[in-house]
Amino acid sequence: MPHEIWRVNVQTQELRREPVPEAWQHWGGRGLIARILLDEVPPSADPLGPYNRLIFAPGLLGGHMLSSADRVSVGGKSPLTGTVKEANAGGQTGLALARLGIRALIVEDGAPEGLWVLHISAQGARFDPADDLSGLGVYETAARLRERYGKNIAAAVIGPAGERRMRAAAILHLDKDGVPGRASARGGLGALMGSRGLKAVVVDRQGGSPPPLADPEAFRSLQKRYNQALLAHPQTHTYHDYGTAAMVAMCNAFGGLPTRGFSQGQFEGADAIGGEALREMILARGGEGNPSHACMAGCIILCSNVFPDAGGRTVVSPLEYETIALMGSNLGLDDLETIARLNWHANDIGVDTIEVGAALGVAARGGLWSFGDGAAALGLMDEIRRATPLGRILGNGAVATGQAFGVLQVPAVKGQAIAAYDPRAIKGTGVTYATSPQGADHTAGLTIRAKIDHLKPEGQVAVSRRAQVAMAAYDTLGICIFAGFGLSTAPDLIPALLRARYGWEVGEDVLTRLGEGTIRLERAFNRRVGFGPADDRIPEWMTHEPLPPHHTVFDVPPDELDGIFADLGP
Amino acid sequence: MPHEIWRVNVQTQELRREPVPEAWQHWGGRGLIARILLDEVPPSADPLGPYNRLIFAPGLLGGHMLSSADRVSVGGKSPLTGTVKEANAGGQTGLALARLGIRALIVEDGAPEGLWVLHISAQGARFDPADDLSGLGVYETAARLRERYGKNIAAAVIGPAGERRMRAAAILHLDKDGVPGRASARGGLGALMGSRGLKAVVVDRQGGSPPPLADPEAFRSLQKRYNQALLAHPQTHTYHDYGTAAMVAMCNAFGGLPTRGFSQGQFEGADAIGGEALREMILARGGEGNPSHACMAGCIILCSNVFPDAGGRTVVSPLEYETIALMGSNLGLDDLETIARLNWHANDIGVDTIEVGAALGVAARGGLWSFGDGAAALGLMDEIRRATPLGRILGNGAVATGQAFGVLQVPAVKGQAIAAYDPRAIKGTGVTYATSPQGADHTAGLTIRAKIDHLKPEGQVAVSRRAQVAMAAYDTLGICIFAGFGLSTAPDLIPALLRARYGWEVGEDVLTRLGEGTIRLERAFNRRVGFGPADDRIPEWMTHEPLPPHHTVFDVPPDELDGIFADLGP
Repeated sequence: MPHEIWRVNVQTQELRREPVPEAWQHWGGRGLIARILLDEVPPSADPLGPYNRLIFAPGLLGGHMLSSADRVSVGGKSPLTGTVKEANAGGQTGLALARLGIRALIVEDGAPEGLWVLHISAQGARFDPADDLSGLGVYETAARLRERYGKNIAAAVIGPAGERRMRAAAILHLDKDGVPGRASARGGLGALMGSRGLKAVVVDRQGGSPPPLADPEAFRSLQKRYNQALLAHPQTHTYHDYGTAAMVAMCNAFGGLPTRGFSQGQFEGADAIGGEALREMILARGGEGNPSHACMAGCIILCSNVFPDAGGRTVVSPLEYETIALMGSNLGLDDLETIARLNWHANDIGVDTIEVGAALGVAARGGLWSFGDGAAALGLMDEIRRATPLGRILGNGAVATGQAFGVLQVPAVKGQAIAAYDPRAIKGTGVTYATSPQGADHTAGLTIRAKIDHLKPEGQVAVSRRAQVAMAAYDTLGICIFAGFGLSTAPDLIPALLRARYGWEVGEDVLTRLGEGTIRLERAFNRRVGFGPADDRIPEWMTHEPLPPHHTVFDVPPDELDGIFADLGP
Repeated sequence: MPHEIWRVNVQTQELRREPVPEAWQHWGGRGLIARILLDEVPPSADPLGPYNRLIFAPGLLGGHMLSSADRVSVGGKSPLTGTVKEANAGGQTGLALARLGIRALIVEDGAPEGLWVLHISAQGARFDPADDLSGLGVYETAARLRERYGKNIAAAVIGPAGERRMRAAAILHLDKDGVPGRASARGGLGALMGSRGLKAVVVDRQGGSPPPLADPEAFRSLQKRYNQALLAHPQTHTYHDYGTAAMVAMCNAFGGLPTRGFSQGQFEGADAIGGEALREMILARGGEGNPSHACMAGCIILCSNVFPDAGGRTVVSPLEYETIALMGSNLGLDDLETIARLNWHANDIGVDTIEVGAALGVAARGGLWSFGDGAAALGLMDEIRRATPLGRILGNGAVATGQAFGVLQVPAVKGQAIAAYDPRAIKGTGVTYATSPQGADHTAGLTIRAKIDHLKPEGQVAVSRRAQVAMAAYDTLGICIFAGFGLSTAPDLIPALLRARYGWEVGEDVLTRLGEGTIRLERAFNRRVGFGPADDRIPEWMTHEPLPPHHTVFDVPPDELDGIFADLGP
């Protein structure tokens, strides 16, 4: 298949297929999204208005089932933050787009009449009426799409939250088993998709083929080395056995586990919701449960899981650390099954578990309900589903909730909720929250594994910068960070894979160049929108309200924050 | 009395009285607020957090009962917009502060326990417990304050909206008759006051005296000329007879009267809610009604009014154009009594009628209620009063309401609702909305009386700039714009008054210098917060959705907007 940009206009329902412009050719995934936004979206564009773009882009190494390298990046100007936004996910969407030779699918214009499924295949693009799917949950929608279009489709789906343009709305992708559990969660991209009248983007990769290789033999030999490097790393096995939930114990030990609305850093119920408890419960319950599941074809890490109820029937898949923290300890809940049910509702409604978990925590601090009351939390999810006024507040995220209920202690940067590492205890990740062009986002540069005293302000900016640059590079390649541990032991692999795939002359600094280049583009976009140093800050209250048990505040000096990317443009 | 800065700390409940710093001495009112914010508030301060300031400042010419020159400026970093914010009002607060020799009352720190009345008098400042006033409406609060502290107090009061930190919360000042009808309405300053635990600031001017005069004889003779100039201008008499409501017919004729959520520029019911109808109804109903009322001692214009019900009992005072438009035509309501009742509720709850009127319009566009249903509109005011989730959404203003209900057509700039002149029909005022450092605000520079084709983009930037500079100067002097018509016929008066008051050597350019200087300070503050050219824009939808009946869009070119204050710093 040729490499192309596909543009669909939701007003005219026309598709234009274009060659990849010269300036875009060396970009994929997150970097390509930044490049497109900078080139095509006016800085003052309303994120939900007609001048924004909704973009789907596989990474540079997508399309070959390289382990965990088929992530899809989704992006646009964020309805939640107003910044550049990229939210990548596993599942099948990335692979399917790459197999059709689509470097980026750009959805143009807004506010069409009705609700539609955008169907993408080797035959082109078409819009199928989807008014019958209006208001349906993500799971039911996914089931109907698979009935209608076949079991092997990839699909990106929104729930009622996205249709209603809630700012916490996510886009859910089908995983390799057809379960819509992989989320482009952050930044309200579900609302952007809803504003385009799209209930789903279905991608049928039949008739497609893997992208061409400049040196097929070298690529296949590198693929073997790549798998060996992954399997040789102990962290890969931790993910295989415990998934991301292993982080509960680690973050709790550091005193950075968000607990009861970010008022504490350790949770007395941490053991009950940690990786070992999760694995034991899944194994004991059996049935459809699975502690080691792959979200995409070809992945050999298997960090995902399937969480069953007592009868062995699936409650949700996957159940991951960020959700366990934001909807568990952060809400004072120590019961994995309740957390799993909250997670299922969030997926089905189509909202970000981090953003809504943080919003529920803010609401509890505002006296709306009591921490630890699982039934009340489930009731609030139902408010979001029914789009009551209260549900609309919560569905617009933590900042909207803090505003509505007069709560100052809102954990958010640039309008986006902080993830499951309190910045007062894991200060390098705090630097990432503050300075990432994406708003608060742990996936933009997590530092908890860095060899540094996380409680001290010294050295955190350097640690965060390294992590942020690496993540921007992986997100541009389409590679899951969980492959990064193995890859770090073989730094020649990525450049060699890019040479074998594209024939590019790239050296071992290519990761740095891709990462720095991506952040440079993203910062340029944000700067044009009007973001600047004053926005690169941890919430003020976290600089003067100490976090138990270590009683630290976030105290990385502002001028150090301002210098983090000073070499990458204003 | 000496000229002093009074600083009260809401945590320690201490007062510090300080001489006016050199750099602040030539500033008053709005200009002084900008200077203080720039000097003392860190740009990233949470508006409701401890590092913001709440400032009350009379204007430079306050304290002498010069007609309509005793307005009070209230300011801080805005909870609604995040920008610099000054909202001035009539009533007695300005005069009382000036009589006590207070150039600025600066409220420091935040989040104290309990609710308080800050009592200011010649004896100093004290905090009286006010928990018994918690949740009370503004009118009942005002009555109790006058019982407790005497009939001659000045007072600035918040309602339940301010206590709950709603972003549309206003501060209501007692007028010369003790009625809390003069609002520092815009920018959510009531929420800032609520976050300081202050239900009211009571100012008892007993024992105070008029500020010293450098040349008393000249001042008194100028005062006579000033009054003559005002009385000689025909506009003064229009205001006397019809108040601001005369604007209904004018703006409707231009096709710029906000109608049904800013979807139309002419209202079929305009005659029924215009100045003549209002005057006739007040005169016909008699009783407590009064078409020509003064909000402050000494004013000879009498633009205010008292609107009575059929039995002659006061419904609200005053009933003004912005409210008639935003809560009348903008909501499809053509019944003055319903509008007056909405106004009373807004005052009593303590919210800005413009912001909440705009929010109700957005809610109607979102399908929450039907335009023209007065009972439904009154019911929504009750939701705000009871602080239901829906009421909290509406009480946070037009942008929050648009977000909650997925409505793109939100009339707001920098988070603040556009006032009663649609920018697509009165384009010079659109330039003001876009470029004022205050966010959308007609009082920052109204252009509807300029001799220009309001539908054409040409020349609007120059017209808006002149108006904005003049208004910033009047707001710094403490003078009501309605005196400006008369003053414009005698351009030597203001400089002569300043010479007689302070002994300053100022020439006829002093208005320009004060106005430009104020805007320069405000822009400097905003720039540090992170606002820039991309924020100086009319909402995107107004640039592509034409406004009936003239079917124009807002099309003043962005680069012209960006140039408006280019000479006043970045």
